[in-house]
Amino acid sequence: MSEAAFIAGDWGTSRLRLYLCDARGSVLARGEGEGAAVPDCAGRFAAAVAAWDKAHGILPAVLGGMVGSTIGWKEVPYLNCPAKPQAIAGAALHVDAGGRAVAILPGLSCTGRTGAPDVMRGEETQILGAFRLHPDLARGRRLFCLPGTHAKWVAVQSGAVMDFQTALSGELFELLRRHSVLARDGGEVDSDSPALTHGLDLVRANPDADLLHLLFSTRARVVTGQMAKNDAASYLSGLVLGKDIATALKLFGRNGPVHLICTPQLAALYGRALNAYDVPFAAIDGDTAALAGLVHAHAEIFS
Amino acid sequence: MSEAAFIAGDWGTSRLRLYLCDARGSVLARGEGEGAAVPDCAGRFAAAVAAWDKAHGILPAVLGGMVGSTIGWKEVPYLNCPAKPQAIAGAALHVDAGGRAVAILPGLSCTGRTGAPDVMRGEETQILGAFRLHPDLARGRRLFCLPGTHAKWVAVQSGAVMDFQTALSGELFELLRRHSVLARDGGEVDSDSPALTHGLDLVRANPDADLLHLLFSTRARVVTGQMAKNDAASYLSGLVLGKDIATALKLFGRNGPVHLICTPQLAALYGRALNAYDVPFAAIDGDTAALAGLVHAHAEIFS
Repeated sequence: MSEAAFIAGDWGTSRLRLYLCDARGSVLARGEGEGAAVPDCAGRFAAAVAAWDKAHGILPAVLGGMVGSTIGWKEVPYLNCPAKPQAIAGAALHVDAGGRAVAILPGLSCTGRTGAPDVMRGEETQILGAFRLHPDLARGRRLFCLPGTHAKWVAVQSGAVMDFQTALSGELFELLRRHSVLARDGGEVDSDSPALTHGLDLVRANPDADLLHLLFSTRARVVTGQMAKNDAASYLSGLVLGKDIATALKLFGRNGPVHLICTPQLAALYGRALNAYDVPFAAIDGDTAALAGLVHAHAEIFS
Repeated sequence: MSEAAFIAGDWGTSRLRLYLCDARGSVLARGEGEGAAVPDCAGRFAAAVAAWDKAHGILPAVLGGMVGSTIGWKEVPYLNCPAKPQAIAGAALHVDAGGRAVAILPGLSCTGRTGAPDVMRGEETQILGAFRLHPDLARGRRLFCLPGTHAKWVAVQSGAVMDFQTALSGELFELLRRHSVLARDGGEVDSDSPALTHGLDLVRANPDADLLHLLFSTRARVVTGQMAKNDAASYLSGLVLGKDIATALKLFGRNGPVHLICTPQLAALYGRALNAYDVPFAAIDGDTAALAGLVHAHAEIFS
């Protein structure tokens, strides 16, 4: 068995995923912990890796995600785009945690295609991971999409993150589903549902209408008996997904496949919607990408 | 003093406004009550007007709003557009309530400019009222906007409601303000705030970007220190207002002033945003319009 060399930590707002890795980045053991929003990241990290310390000595650690935000361990300033992998690794904040060398990766900032400022924290690590998993993605122009609470559309050129645009898709959908009149008792989202297709179709037929003027159709279709109440969540999901993709294609253009980095569930949903826009896509698992990004950063920082 | 002739009831989801009127529609007395969403509309109405019955005998009543929905007194089917005032009054549901002739006005349905079905209930009464208050509005082509939880943009031609489009503006703004990460502790909306103008400006600069891709700039501006936290609600309000108006102008075109029917507070906000789009506007008070609409309908039904 190969020797443990470092600890990688994918530390978001609501959870910590820990990996004990050998020098080549292979995973020897896994651990878990609470998110970065809970106080005392330093103490909780030390406790979470205590058994590994005992078995392997105090190993260096590379951490990415919200652990580097104002609510996390230590704030790491955003690195402004364009940003290459070496620059992202180089902007890590180094902390001496009781004799352990800890590197916390920065988030990225940019001026988005809309002209407004934008920020990300954690997704840059997943993009680094995509380059490690598929080195060809660090060549040429690439469009990434990282769906989630705040979906990130990211333009990459020759391995540098050029700029990105956040869409509030996940958060907006959940707010509308839970709290609005639109989809109360509206069933579960089914990525194979004809109702989802109807939502996507309405968006495609209305390139000039904002989501604001499309959303109420969810309610109107139910009230007029044209849609079953139970289909409302899927239909609403189609509206939000469709507008997310339609606007992203306007802002970034069509240029080869969209590289999705997310859970398999979200990949199925976004894949379905990208198909409706005749856009090819490829999917990379989000957790796998985050780990690969931390391994990538470790090689840049500690080698 | 003129003689009491009928009772007008503006009965929405959350409140009932009652007016004792003479034959010409002048108000002799006012009353209030709970919204149509509370059970037993019939019993509550009888109790609310009992004193007027004693003083004036049992008078006929005209009611409009959510009282005619499935959650109200009796469901009155939607009247499909185009709909003239006479047809709206003619589609009222007549109820004999213990010897009292009660007419409950219908809502309207249509296929909106997006091709999806749309519905309104209550706003049609306010538009009838606008015609009574300003008879010239029943001539030529007119564009009305009734801001609120579900804003209605309404195309009128020669006094007929041709079609309309609902924007989720009010409800979406409140959801985002209360529950999203965007405007927590984001201050109050100030219609004179430069932050509101910044929101409007971003929308104007991005006709191709959906609100979905503009909203996160609220958070990014605060996180990057470009906007005070306390300005977030006003900025967010500018984004939503701007997109509401920009899309409505695309869907309905620019054709003379927009006739706002709403509270003075909403008229100030929408007026500010319409100014930014160089669109003239005129405002009619929403409660005054609802009363005038009930008087208009009474004349059609009972005269």
